[in-house]
Amino acid sequence: MAIRIFITGGTFDKEYNELNGQLYFKDTHLSDLLEMGRSKAPVEIRTLMMVDSLEMTDEDRELIIRQCNNCEETQIVITHGTDTMADTATVLGKAIQHKTIILTGAMIPIKFGSSDGLFNLGSALAFAQALPFGVYVAMNGRYFNWDNVRKNKQTGVFEEIK
Amino acid sequence: MAIRIFITGGTFDKEYNELNGQLYFKDTHLSDLLEMGRSKAPVEIRTLMMVDSLEMTDEDRELIIRQCNNCEETQIVITHGTDTMADTATVLGKAIQHKTIILTGAMIPIKFGSSDGLFNLGSALAFAQALPFGVYVAMNGRYFNWDNVRKNKQTGVFEEIK
Amino acid sequence: MAIRIFITGGTFDKEYNELNGQLYFKDTHLSDLLEMGRSKAPVEIRTLMMVDSLEMTDEDRELIIRQCNNCEETQIVITHGTDTMADTATVLGKAIQHKTIILTGAMIPIKFGSSDGLFNLGSALAFAQALPFGVYVAMNGRYFNWDNVRKNKQTGVFEEIK
Amino acid sequence: MAIRIFITGGTFDKEYNELNGQLYFKDTHLSDLLEMGRSKAPVEIRTLMMVDSLEMTDEDRELIIRQCNNCEETQIVITHGTDTMADTATVLGKAIQHKTIILTGAMIPIKFGSSDGLFNLGSALAFAQALPFGVYVAMNGRYFNWDNVRKNKQTGVFEEIK
Repeated sequence: MAIRIFITGGTFDKEYNELNGQLYFKDTHLSDLLEMGRSKAPVEIRTLMMVDSLEMTDEDRELIIRQCNNCEETQIVITHGTDTMADTATVLGKAIQHKTIILTGAMIPIKFGSSDGLFNLGSALAFAQALPFGVYVAMNGRYFNWDNVRKNKQTGVFEEIK
Repeated sequence: MAIRIFITGGTFDKEYNELNGQLYFKDTHLSDLLEMGRSKAPVEIRTLMMVDSLEMTDEDRELIIRQCNNCEETQIVITHGTDTMADTATVLGKAIQHKTIILTGAMIPIKFGSSDGLFNLGSALAFAQALPFGVYVAMNGRYFNWDNVRKNKQTGVFEEIK
Repeated sequence: MAIRIFITGGTFDKEYNELNGQLYFKDTHLSDLLEMGRSKAPVEIRTLMMVDSLEMTDEDRELIIRQCNNCEETQIVITHGTDTMADTATVLGKAIQHKTIILTGAMIPIKFGSSDGLFNLGSALAFAQALPFGVYVAMNGRYFNWDNVRKNKQTGVFEEIK
Repeated sequence: MAIRIFITGGTFDKEYNELNGQLYFKDTHLSDLLEMGRSKAPVEIRTLMMVDSLEMTDEDRELIIRQCNNCEETQIVITHGTDTMADTATVLGKAIQHKTIILTGAMIPIKFGSSDGLFNLGSALAFAQALPFGVYVAMNGRYFNWDNVRKNKQTGVFEEIK
């Protein structure tokens, strides 16, 4: 069965607007990245929203839970802004038991030459295929259980709470 | 405990020689890639050789087996040329039982802007952390058991034999 | 004699701050670009300021005039934000006669993989060596006299006024 | 009037063949580069051949001369392999007087992230617009007259003969 990929926005998919110098969302770069990675893992991609994770609402998170529950796939990757990734992981972790759900994102937009997005996507797809049911954050080359992860605001690095 | 990374060469680490237009090996790009991926997974990196995998000898493979056996880490990633990656996986799969060993590489040199190397490395590090003991090839966003993988020479894509 | 390069900031040298998602100035990328271009043209580089061109003051422009007048070189390239590049060109064009001065910049930060900065820098250095005395804007693969150029705010493209 | 661009091949347009690890020619990247450079200079592009410059024949050079003579444009850029660029410049320099012809190329294929090709193209287009009639090589951020240029085989850098 395919791996389900849900796109929610975040730094991952930010573009640079040449006219006003602002970062903004246009289209997702997911397909380009999978092509660059020569990925042949079967995937089903769906864009749920395109938001900064600081602006993600409770309703947005309800929608993500519903989509994870309703899709037939049991292996799910969610691209997400890093600022509230741990919050969404917590909400999902409490709500869903019988799927392997991996949240990932990027510290640098994909469109920047030196982004961590391609690395993180490779990592997330692998964890989705290999980890047992549960909700995880995959960042910095590691994975974290949903109830033991936070983003260190000083360093930008994900770490265990305990 | 750290993840052990053994470097053996392959397309992954090929450079372009400006003076004669040939591809060649200089240094490995592993550390640059881990930095780009903002990886904080503890790793121990060691370069075993820098060869085209078509030129890898039985002695080279003996050396790889010995290094995998002798290192204290149980999670191992090996960067390797794609042409004989499945062969080396077979040799390792028969020789080693109690470690998780992931072979990976790239279809395009890292130094090319559009390489799959960063994606594959993220994928390999994740599989090394999440798969049970065994020897695997991680390419094309998937993993393959050592006794059921080949590179399709026509498409360049890894696939199951059976 | 060398070509003098004055750096004033602009999109050209913007970096992405991973921690807060803002664009900001750190160091100039001029030397990296010249190295990538394998440039052997003798240059003298000096950073005069690191500002958004929308925030450039009259005093800043006075400083630029003074530096252009006082340096011994007669071929000068100035990297500059695009929003007020034509304004600075006008001020320089009225003040300086016996030098070839080329203003250039970028629509996309250099650190983005798809920046026009490397192209523009190659273009500006060439115009500095080949055009007669005068003040020019070099953008979009073309050059414009200081008294006949504006940036089209809708398209982001430089064009003649008349 | 437009600038005429003739494509002859060279390192500039080399691709990496994933299946056999060889460099080869597919399509030219000229249009992509002009787009990346946001170039609005009017150009007419024509591919004359796609060869390594070491394999360029006398007949090939005759064809280039004929095309330069017959096109209506007086500003011409020729992309060319670096190994025999000076030779072709000599042949053109002796044959053509009333046009500005700029030969340029790249030390690293465009498809490599760190190519000098974008810089050189910006430089060549600028020289074509600003230099008087004559045949020139534009490499390393400089221009050279056709009768006073060679590629230093040890350093890969273009230099004056005298």
